[in-house]
Amino acid sequence: MAQTFDLTTYLDRYRRSVETSLDSYLPMGYPEKIYEAMRYSLLAGGKRLRPILVLASCELCGGTPEMAMPTACAVEMIHTMSLIHDDLPAMDNDDYRRGKLTNHKVYGEDIAILAGDGLLAYAFELVADRTPPEVSRERVVQVIALLARSVSAAGLVGGQVVDLEMEGKPDATEEMLNYIHQHKTAALLEASVLGGAILGGANPSELDLLRQYAQNIGLAFQIIDDILDITSTQAELGKSVGKDEKAQKLTYPKLWGIEESKIKAENLITEAKNILQAFTDRAVPLQALADFIVARTN
Amino acid sequence: MAQTFDLTTYLDRYRRSVETSLDSYLPMGYPEKIYEAMRYSLLAGGKRLRPILVLASCELCGGTPEMAMPTACAVEMIHTMSLIHDDLPAMDNDDYRRGKLTNHKVYGEDIAILAGDGLLAYAFELVADRTPPEVSRERVVQVIALLARSVSAAGLVGGQVVDLEMEGKPDATEEMLNYIHQHKTAALLEASVLGGAILGGANPSELDLLRQYAQNIGLAFQIIDDILDITSTQAELGKSVGKDEKAQKLTYPKLWGIEESKIKAENLITEAKNILQAFTDRAVPLQALADFIVARTN
Repeated sequence: MAQTFDLTTYLDRYRRSVETSLDSYLPMGYPEKIYEAMRYSLLAGGKRLRPILVLASCELCGGTPEMAMPTACAVEMIHTMSLIHDDLPAMDNDDYRRGKLTNHKVYGEDIAILAGDGLLAYAFELVADRTPPEVSRERVVQVIALLARSVSAAGLVGGQVVDLEMEGKPDATEEMLNYIHQHKTAALLEASVLGGAILGGANPSELDLLRQYAQNIGLAFQIIDDILDITSTQAELGKSVGKDEKAQKLTYPKLWGIEESKIKAENLITEAKNILQAFTDRAVPLQALADFIVARTN
Repeated sequence: MAQTFDLTTYLDRYRRSVETSLDSYLPMGYPEKIYEAMRYSLLAGGKRLRPILVLASCELCGGTPEMAMPTACAVEMIHTMSLIHDDLPAMDNDDYRRGKLTNHKVYGEDIAILAGDGLLAYAFELVADRTPPEVSRERVVQVIALLARSVSAAGLVGGQVVDLEMEGKPDATEEMLNYIHQHKTAALLEASVLGGAILGGANPSELDLLRQYAQNIGLAFQIIDDILDITSTQAELGKSVGKDEKAQKLTYPKLWGIEESKIKAENLITEAKNILQAFTDRAVPLQALADFIVARTN
């Protein structure tokens, strides 16, 4: 498998499969405006990295993509909800996301808030209602608890609160920076990997390895995000760049320099890949996904 | 039981029990500001009608209050989240709720949006994580799907969207008015009654009766809400009054007159109580709760 695995083909295939599922899980409905707004942000493209992690992790642990597709799409809905709300004028006040106008710029603030709420609620309905019967309801409940925690005040929401507090405080501590990224970025990446693993039937020691893997790629992901905010352009990134500098936020490149940050991200990825060696060849897709995280340019 | 049942005592006992559980399920945590904001609105009092319906319905169907308490509190968290978001400047722009300043007036818009998100996510975590093991996970998953649907674009969120569209349209149709209230008010009341029933082990015909009961009290509840917005004072209601008139919204009293609206609400309640006669004496608490809905003054 190691010789023949082609990440580009793998990513394309899974991304297309996720896009198709997102589109069919959330068809248009009444009131049209809210369905349009939810679909506008949900179907705006993106790497679909989180849902692909759910699918890959489920397969690694012996499950099928069908078992994990509702959870994969739920994770993308949660991620999209957090982007819509973070972009609001009362928060980061951003006009562009994934190369398109942000949700509130198109539909207004009221609808953007409600579109986020609707996506968050629908994520849980999807996992509860559409996970196929060959997955035990015990596992479904575990995955719902995991996803819910990853977006609560103990996860994404908590991370965003501290992130908002950090604005204009470039002398904040590394500890706060870690807190933000563990909660704002790593928590949902970890829930994606572990959610897929639970659905696939992982045992406790497999879950433990996958947790370590997820924490490593979560931090590496954020370091690269911080670097891209400095080195990339809006056209490449699809969203505003130089935001951290403008908001006077502490970032990893500010703390360590760009080169050293890159090295740290690469080391985290190497470690993440090594952690999965116990899974032998079956780990190749998740190992390749780890490489993709540092190699990405948007 | 019919002779000795005292609704005031019943409501007091269950309300205290819900208050205690809400407080203990959501203790303070880091970041303090978000936990404070969530607790500020969640513990601001209120009738706790929805959680009491969950508990009463669970008991009616043979369950214990312990089985239903996480769901009861989850429903109150969802309700509180919808109030926090509806009160935002981008939506109804209200300054008072339950006799206190609204969440965003105290904590700012950014934190108010996140407090709503955090409560919504935590509601699902609570049901998934804390429902005791004597309730099958099959039932837990059903309740999660039901709650999620009641707040999604097919429920609360959809109702609020059409409600926002109705502002300044006093000549909207009765059909639109019904749509708003079935989704904005009745959906969560119905989810409360049915959620409790599922946890308690209701069979399909019991669920069917309880659904009819819930739809009746849901509509009656909203008619009374519309009347109180006209006849009550801010001191009695704890929130702004005369809002519908100011927003030029169609309401039931505008459609039918206040007296006729009261009669319709009372008829709905009588019908709701009759529907439950099949449950004999065990239905007394839910029947008394139906009476309470039309008799309430806030």
